[in-house]
Amino acid sequence: MKLIRYGESGKEKIGVQINGINYDTTAFGGDYDERFFAENGLDRLEQFVKANAGQLTEIPKDSRLGAPFGRPSKIVCIGLNYRDHAEETGAAIPAEPIIFMKSTTALVGPNDQVVIPKNSVKTDWEVEFGIVIGKKATYVEESEALDYVAGYVLHNDVSEREFQIERGGTWDKGKGCDTFAPMGPVMTTKEEIPDINNVRLWLKVNGKTYQEGNTKNLIFSVEHVVSYVSQFMTLLPGDVISTGTPAGVGLGFNPPIYLKEGDVIELGADHLGEQRQEVIAWRR
Amino acid sequence: MKLIRYGESGKEKIGVQINGINYDTTAFGGDYDERFFAENGLDRLEQFVKANAGQLTEIPKDSRLGAPFGRPSKIVCIGLNYRDHAEETGAAIPAEPIIFMKSTTALVGPNDQVVIPKNSVKTDWEVEFGIVIGKKATYVEESEALDYVAGYVLHNDVSEREFQIERGGTWDKGKGCDTFAPMGPVMTTKEEIPDINNVRLWLKVNGKTYQEGNTKNLIFSVEHVVSYVSQFMTLLPGDVISTGTPAGVGLGFNPPIYLKEGDVIELGADHLGEQRQEVIAWRR
Repeated sequence: MKLIRYGESGKEKIGVQINGINYDTTAFGGDYDERFFAENGLDRLEQFVKANAGQLTEIPKDSRLGAPFGRPSKIVCIGLNYRDHAEETGAAIPAEPIIFMKSTTALVGPNDQVVIPKNSVKTDWEVEFGIVIGKKATYVEESEALDYVAGYVLHNDVSEREFQIERGGTWDKGKGCDTFAPMGPVMTTKEEIPDINNVRLWLKVNGKTYQEGNTKNLIFSVEHVVSYVSQFMTLLPGDVISTGTPAGVGLGFNPPIYLKEGDVIELGADHLGEQRQEVIAWRR
Repeated sequence: MKLIRYGESGKEKIGVQINGINYDTTAFGGDYDERFFAENGLDRLEQFVKANAGQLTEIPKDSRLGAPFGRPSKIVCIGLNYRDHAEETGAAIPAEPIIFMKSTTALVGPNDQVVIPKNSVKTDWEVEFGIVIGKKATYVEESEALDYVAGYVLHNDVSEREFQIERGGTWDKGKGCDTFAPMGPVMTTKEEIPDINNVRLWLKVNGKTYQEGNTKNLIFSVEHVVSYVSQFMTLLPGDVISTGTPAGVGLGFNPPIYLKEGDVIELGADHLGEQRQEVIAWRR
């Protein structure tokens, strides 16, 4: 199953994508949020969709898509989780996963504009494979980690490198600006992806390919990061873990390449669909 | 006004504290959450309390207290914000505020047990003065920062030093374990504190005083940190910024002193009340 949400930002309606077509599921009730995932919402939604087969309303093709779930309690990110990306940034290969956190106010739809923050000169892109948690997870074993996963989502982990690296303290400062977490278009439930550790990811800016990766090159696998993060904090239904980005970010070039107003970012992943963002400058 | 919440964890009811006595305000409706703060809840609650003066029900004295507000969208913390604490940890005085984030699943009531996490050997205490945001804040000027504040709260920023410092990546790894964010007993609205940059804070373990600080010694003031954080992420109504801890944490001793099962932590601050936590070891 593929979940979508559409309509005005902050007032999104729920839906599902079937064979590439988006249908409204408002009659199911509620939102795709912590409660939905905690209360067996995926199973109930599947039954609802079956019971209404052929009767769901197609949503208008020009609808804005929101993130495919409501604001999670947290977005946890894994840093430097592809060997080639660690190397391009000049960082050592981490001995265990690096964790940082992204303000959930950064969450936007997959095709919303990305805003270069006030005073930013180093806004950068990062295509990532995101994990959506399905049930409360604390001290989960790696062998059982996937039992706690609802599905997966494409994420552009937009990053301001000066804020992240040059302003003191943790990376969190450069990760949580408004519009820095486009997610979607769909949340693909786990049974639809035959091998989560073999998913291709790509990202282009202005039509030029900058990132081409595959989750098979993750230093720490999907199962490992779910287990690992759950040793340090409880994951709630609907929470997101973003697994890190492969090589090809702007910071990795010499000289570095950063986003500017008018740029167009396109990204995608097997099974997770595609995003397209226009970059604009912040204005009061 | 002083807000409280009481009752079973996860099912807290709302109330107010008047002259040290806690009264139920369930009839006001809802919770003290993002919506409450966004929709002028403090003013409406004040009117409700006035309209019901003398008629509010006192809550049972043995009631468990919860955090004085519902789970916020984020808990942002400022690191090394007292000169004496920066020095005791061997860190440089920061040139600008250090930001890290605490998983909101760590939030508990002021007198709940603190659980030493699985595999932890360096669980430590940090008394802090916390700011509760009253309205959505993005790119706020320091001169206007207090317009965006609802009130203040006492916070024990419990920290696992090995997870925080020795396991790679950001501090977030050692800050968000379950029970690591006792807050309360009250949220004191801003007009009740004559000078927020002159509030005494203290913390004892097993009756011995370890921390004695005052917000007048903050490197970056309350107004500054609200403005500063809002340059990097949007603060939502109900969000918490914890302003940092003064000297006297366990890490600062030679050899360091860490929490063990059976320890009792007591802490307090002018205008914000007192907390008492029993420390227990994690058990499956």
